[in-house]
Amino acid sequence: MLNFKKDAFMGCECPFDQAETIMFSAPFDSTTSFRPGVRFAGKDIRKNSYGIESYSPYQDRDLFDLKIMDTGDLVLPFGNAKLAIEIIEQQASQILESGKILFMLGGEHLVTLGAVRAAVKKHSDLHILHFDAHADLRDDYLGESLSHATVMRRVWEYVGDKRVYQCGIRSGDAAEFEFANEHTVLSKYNLKKIENFVRALEGKPVYFSLDLDVLDPSVFPGTGTPEPGGVTFQELHNAVLLMKGLNIVGCDVVELSPHYDPSGISTMAACKIIREILMVATPKDSS
Amino acid sequence: MLNFKKDAFMGCECPFDQAETIMFSAPFDSTTSFRPGVRFAGKDIRKNSYGIESYSPYQDRDLFDLKIMDTGDLVLPFGNAKLAIEIIEQQASQILESGKILFMLGGEHLVTLGAVRAAVKKHSDLHILHFDAHADLRDDYLGESLSHATVMRRVWEYVGDKRVYQCGIRSGDAAEFEFANEHTVLSKYNLKKIENFVRALEGKPVYFSLDLDVLDPSVFPGTGTPEPGGVTFQELHNAVLLMKGLNIVGCDVVELSPHYDPSGISTMAACKIIREILMVATPKDSS
Amino acid sequence: MLNFKKDAFMGCECPFDQAETIMFSAPFDSTTSFRPGVRFAGKDIRKNSYGIESYSPYQDRDLFDLKIMDTGDLVLPFGNAKLAIEIIEQQASQILESGKILFMLGGEHLVTLGAVRAAVKKHSDLHILHFDAHADLRDDYLGESLSHATVMRRVWEYVGDKRVYQCGIRSGDAAEFEFANEHTVLSKYNLKKIENFVRALEGKPVYFSLDLDVLDPSVFPGTGTPEPGGVTFQELHNAVLLMKGLNIVGCDVVELSPHYDPSGISTMAACKIIREILMVATPKDSS
Amino acid sequence: MLNFKKDAFMGCECPFDQAETIMFSAPFDSTTSFRPGVRFAGKDIRKNSYGIESYSPYQDRDLFDLKIMDTGDLVLPFGNAKLAIEIIEQQASQILESGKILFMLGGEHLVTLGAVRAAVKKHSDLHILHFDAHADLRDDYLGESLSHATVMRRVWEYVGDKRVYQCGIRSGDAAEFEFANEHTVLSKYNLKKIENFVRALEGKPVYFSLDLDVLDPSVFPGTGTPEPGGVTFQELHNAVLLMKGLNIVGCDVVELSPHYDPSGISTMAACKIIREILMVATPKDSS
Amino acid sequence: MLNFKKDAFMGCECPFDQAETIMFSAPFDSTTSFRPGVRFAGKDIRKNSYGIESYSPYQDRDLFDLKIMDTGDLVLPFGNAKLAIEIIEQQASQILESGKILFMLGGEHLVTLGAVRAAVKKHSDLHILHFDAHADLRDDYLGESLSHATVMRRVWEYVGDKRVYQCGIRSGDAAEFEFANEHTVLSKYNLKKIENFVRALEGKPVYFSLDLDVLDPSVFPGTGTPEPGGVTFQELHNAVLLMKGLNIVGCDVVELSPHYDPSGISTMAACKIIREILMVATPKDSS
Amino acid sequence: MLNFKKDAFMGCECPFDQAETIMFSAPFDSTTSFRPGVRFAGKDIRKNSYGIESYSPYQDRDLFDLKIMDTGDLVLPFGNAKLAIEIIEQQASQILESGKILFMLGGEHLVTLGAVRAAVKKHSDLHILHFDAHADLRDDYLGESLSHATVMRRVWEYVGDKRVYQCGIRSGDAAEFEFANEHTVLSKYNLKKIENFVRALEGKPVYFSLDLDVLDPSVFPGTGTPEPGGVTFQELHNAVLLMKGLNIVGCDVVELSPHYDPSGISTMAACKIIREILMVATPKDSS
Repeated sequence: MLNFKKDAFMGCECPFDQAETIMFSAPFDSTTSFRPGVRFAGKDIRKNSYGIESYSPYQDRDLFDLKIMDTGDLVLPFGNAKLAIEIIEQQASQILESGKILFMLGGEHLVTLGAVRAAVKKHSDLHILHFDAHADLRDDYLGESLSHATVMRRVWEYVGDKRVYQCGIRSGDAAEFEFANEHTVLSKYNLKKIENFVRALEGKPVYFSLDLDVLDPSVFPGTGTPEPGGVTFQELHNAVLLMKGLNIVGCDVVELSPHYDPSGISTMAACKIIREILMVATPKDSS
Repeated sequence: MLNFKKDAFMGCECPFDQAETIMFSAPFDSTTSFRPGVRFAGKDIRKNSYGIESYSPYQDRDLFDLKIMDTGDLVLPFGNAKLAIEIIEQQASQILESGKILFMLGGEHLVTLGAVRAAVKKHSDLHILHFDAHADLRDDYLGESLSHATVMRRVWEYVGDKRVYQCGIRSGDAAEFEFANEHTVLSKYNLKKIENFVRALEGKPVYFSLDLDVLDPSVFPGTGTPEPGGVTFQELHNAVLLMKGLNIVGCDVVELSPHYDPSGISTMAACKIIREILMVATPKDSS
Repeated sequence: MLNFKKDAFMGCECPFDQAETIMFSAPFDSTTSFRPGVRFAGKDIRKNSYGIESYSPYQDRDLFDLKIMDTGDLVLPFGNAKLAIEIIEQQASQILESGKILFMLGGEHLVTLGAVRAAVKKHSDLHILHFDAHADLRDDYLGESLSHATVMRRVWEYVGDKRVYQCGIRSGDAAEFEFANEHTVLSKYNLKKIENFVRALEGKPVYFSLDLDVLDPSVFPGTGTPEPGGVTFQELHNAVLLMKGLNIVGCDVVELSPHYDPSGISTMAACKIIREILMVATPKDSS
Repeated sequence: MLNFKKDAFMGCECPFDQAETIMFSAPFDSTTSFRPGVRFAGKDIRKNSYGIESYSPYQDRDLFDLKIMDTGDLVLPFGNAKLAIEIIEQQASQILESGKILFMLGGEHLVTLGAVRAAVKKHSDLHILHFDAHADLRDDYLGESLSHATVMRRVWEYVGDKRVYQCGIRSGDAAEFEFANEHTVLSKYNLKKIENFVRALEGKPVYFSLDLDVLDPSVFPGTGTPEPGGVTFQELHNAVLLMKGLNIVGCDVVELSPHYDPSGISTMAACKIIREILMVATPKDSS
Repeated sequence: MLNFKKDAFMGCECPFDQAETIMFSAPFDSTTSFRPGVRFAGKDIRKNSYGIESYSPYQDRDLFDLKIMDTGDLVLPFGNAKLAIEIIEQQASQILESGKILFMLGGEHLVTLGAVRAAVKKHSDLHILHFDAHADLRDDYLGESLSHATVMRRVWEYVGDKRVYQCGIRSGDAAEFEFANEHTVLSKYNLKKIENFVRALEGKPVYFSLDLDVLDPSVFPGTGTPEPGGVTFQELHNAVLLMKGLNIVGCDVVELSPHYDPSGISTMAACKIIREILMVATPKDSS
Repeated sequence: MLNFKKDAFMGCECPFDQAETIMFSAPFDSTTSFRPGVRFAGKDIRKNSYGIESYSPYQDRDLFDLKIMDTGDLVLPFGNAKLAIEIIEQQASQILESGKILFMLGGEHLVTLGAVRAAVKKHSDLHILHFDAHADLRDDYLGESLSHATVMRRVWEYVGDKRVYQCGIRSGDAAEFEFANEHTVLSKYNLKKIENFVRALEGKPVYFSLDLDVLDPSVFPGTGTPEPGGVTFQELHNAVLLMKGLNIVGCDVVELSPHYDPSGISTMAACKIIREILMVATPKDSS
């Protein structure tokens, strides 16, 4: 057989045993039918990842020098959030128990819950670093306790008080902001406090959850709930670079909904920030 | 106050008591977040209904001579199919118990179940006339018994054997076609048997369920699961005109997903066929 | 200077004096601001005309053997229908007085009025052949007598009773259809009567007005008021081929609104039918 | 009847008598045919307003604590600017004479003229605060005195010299900038002078006219005449927050043309800034 | 590891040794930069193949009962047609030499040349069955001998006179039609002669090349050169079903350009016809 | 003949002999088939140039006071880069030898090579000012030495060491950045060093090459390879204004791919920056 293009993020197909980081996508969006929104994010990211370079001039590193395996789209049941989260948890546990870094692509934000449940089992003092436009701290959303709007409340139930660090939040109801004041560490509207956060999180096992709608809709129009007034790509990028040195045990990048953006710039923003996070999360080159 | 545009299908705002037909939309699509697919079909149909005439040259009638009330979008819970169907059933019962014709806009096809449950309570010998690309006869779909892919199986459980007349079906798994052979009345691929069907249904209370994806994707691209090889608009239109004289107690028109069709022709097709069905279902002018 | 691409339909730039046919576009659509609908039809048609061949296998002729000049977009005042029609009339008169065939690209359908007024001055027994989805026979539209919805009523006032032959009409109010029964020659819904029409029109000076929305919206989604249930491209094409031999003194092709059709198939349909009409209207090759 | 979704901005349906603010949309865009640009802005804003929260963390207030009635789309004549402005004036007068705040959604910018004429009748010392990319100070535009490009010149004729405060203007012809230097108060390119403007306007009755194209096209692509080099959402938002305390008697938000932006971020920007303006314009909670 | 979605047409991942049919895509379109047209067809077809059923009611067969391996996207050099064709030829030879059926997804039509060169080496009496809107018989195109517009001329040079059977051709220059009359077997405009063609081809080794633009642009808008006046999906489908019994040694399906069709119906048409061709080309179930 | 709209940038049709600046577009993008990406940039820019004013408030100048001729789209061979560059070189030489300023619209970035070869013949000490997201310094790209990814390497071969000034570069492989360090003058990520660059270039003949993807994708989504993290429109605009006084002998503006941006803001950004560059490059008004 000749040379076939790899269906993996930038061709990252390091064998599982040698890999330090395992990527997979969790194409869950609670939709019962074909042609959803965020469900195809993983595939779209993989396909377009070939449009950026593997080399980062910002970090002077090449992704091909890292040991990464992208395993593709996890099969998840439609319309059954509870079971989907359990499958994600199981997959995440496999990765974490092997001592590898977990890197999950959403899907809707609820997928974070499965990964966090796996991470907190391994790291009892897990801390969460959460970039988002929305607080996601409702106790229930229209009667449902498992929802993209409640995910950080559920995560908080697992990791405990003042261990969820939230950045960039610019939307929520009054009760969510009150809850955040009491139970999480909150920095509203932008990422300017990231240095403080990084200092506070140093040495602790950190799970980084990036809801891409923290970006301004001009930069990232391809998402389900665009919230005007977000950060620029450079602001997000700088914040990520500042996270260098954190003990990141798992990450996710969620809420890309490619078909709302015919220009494809949202997917390119996702690809580039994923490349940079991968380099920040992996302490040094594997060579 | 001056004159404001009515937010109703072609401005149909006959008061409930005087109306012979009550329209409403059931914007359910199992999606937990904003910006769904079929959820906005009702709004899109209402908005664009002003782009066609109220007069039908085919039937030489004007919609404004009929007594129709369009009540708008029913509020339905997100991601809870069981409860959504119950609410639809309740709303449909109110309409049917008042002796009025029910006209529901989807939403996904599952909404039909709520309306049929209401209709079968009132008409124990209810028959279903079902136009669709897909058989929708699975017993469960990825473990879920309430799904757009199982709705006609559920409907069959309520109305009984050989009372579901299916037309235009061109997709399903082998088991669905076997089930249809035993338990429903099936005409595959097109609507050519509609005259036979109409003859068989004469005098019986009929619920007409139109999944717009029976149309060819070229005519109706704005849907979740386009299935190539469907009927033309004229074929659907002719079939509808042939239904004149049936005792239609309820109808639905489902599965328009407007944002997949930037040209808007799918919504216009929905608007025009709705106008024609309304005229066919209402025996004569109210004047 | 080197070779520059001609900004003319398929590069048709025969000098005025030698040309037998003069094309121009009338980018009028009553819109007071930039970025309209039909205003850019002419430019879009010219640009994409290079995507089809100049040779027609149907007529075994090549457009390059005809003597055609495309003069481009006429400058028209915004929001002043009366003046715009006068300018179009003036331009059309120049062409007709030179003994040349007029070929106008819309623009909205109202532009036809200007060309017809010029043509009827030269040919007192002018007949109109009109393909359209809409009757366009209102006396006024929301109080305006000059409107795309009234254009054929205005045209009738100039050419007189039973001289407007209308084909394919499938939309209008009841009064328009009544008016047509008395004052025009009407064939509803499709183009099947075109042979009769051609026979009736033989030997008379004919102005052919093609509102492209006579096509089904699946074939021609890029238009302002898509009306489901139209003709296929082949049906339109066959009708045009049957017009061979008519004494066509002027034509227009109107109502393409390119930006509603991101796939561009509407513009391609316009380009191909324009090529065929040009060949039908020009009696024989100029060589 | 069960619970139906309200067709009003975020469900604002306070009865007229109790309402402090009356919203309506003026879907005028001088287009004679269906499927226009700005005509559908009102409907699109209402539909998508459910995608943002009613609570503003910036102002720590909830829209549901305000008394607002959204009356929907005013019916306006097509292609008759003079009459449309008169109807808008009449509707605006009704609102203002009842002592309520007027909040109008465009439509094209010309609609402002109707509202201002009503406001200046009630407040003879009316001042205008105008955010826009374009000066809109032409005396006529291609011969027309009533045009989106002349609206602020017309407004000036009613309110008088140095009472129109213009911010963010980055486009116009040389004559418009000269006129502004003599007759209006102009701050070019951005909103940095807003604090000075607010100080100057304190205590005066102010009509605030927001042409959304003051935003950069990256933030607000869905408009007829995008002009590169505009302000960010945060800059506009901050400027609005600084207006707190002004005596705002009327506002409008104009020039959203939703179908040029398939991602929908333009409409979301409109929704969020409208929420914030509503809170700024209403002095305190009604409770 | 848990269950991951297979990146193969409908999950077809039969091991090479056991497979009877080998699919691969040749993402060549002569474009030197990222974000091309037909280059992503293979990926788009694979992703959306899950939107149709594996069971065909037309053939009463299930794709999962066939032994098919989809190997993915072949890596091809950008902008070097000669080398790309050689690589395709090499890959095709491997498949054919293993006694398996070759099934290639385009890419532009030029890729056919590589596969045909491999097939003619193995089957010296190879015949070609070619469905297309365009004759593709130019000797050179703007000076290039290797082009999508010359591919069937090149193919003819390998297989010889009267062995290329062309169906549906409705575009070309006069010279191409003359060439066809002398050297190929041509049926213009539609597929009505397919039964004659099948009879003539019986018993011979046949390579089937399907340029999807043979379909009408309404059915298949997502292509580089849409040519109005094509066949319906049913006409293409019926023609394919009639090919049952032919000795098909290789096939290709080319010229899908997904990003020109935001509705995605073009890709669904490709998926469904590919499923049907796979069933027609494989003589009987492998079980 | 009446007044026809000029098919030239903002109507610039000064006769060649009187013109000081000659614009033309080089619609080359290595694509062998109709409907490419950057090929239509020239036409799209011309068409939409009427959406901005000819007057610049930033420079207080009017484009109509300059002597500019826009000659339209150069005819270039498909898929033959070498020949295309030669034709561009020939056209550029004609302009430069006449003592006029050259202004070329892309097309892909490779077209710069032809213009630079012409300019370096006339100005042996030519310097290049290059704004871009990508370094374009590869020696070959997938084996091809003439590619959009190698163009600045080729240019360097003609102008020599330290004469290519590169600004805004944020993508490339490690080797390209190393090459830049040794052989070009590089300022990464943004345009902040432009003042230094302008000072260094004073008095020298400068060719300015603007790859519009130096802009952030939010501002300029319509390009083939969007690279997140670019400059704002204002930053680019300010940099251009600072270039006032340079001896610019030629410019190009490349890589607009209009059909990836349905909102059209990319084309508007191109139009406005072109207007500003034209004014900066022309020392003073011709009057």
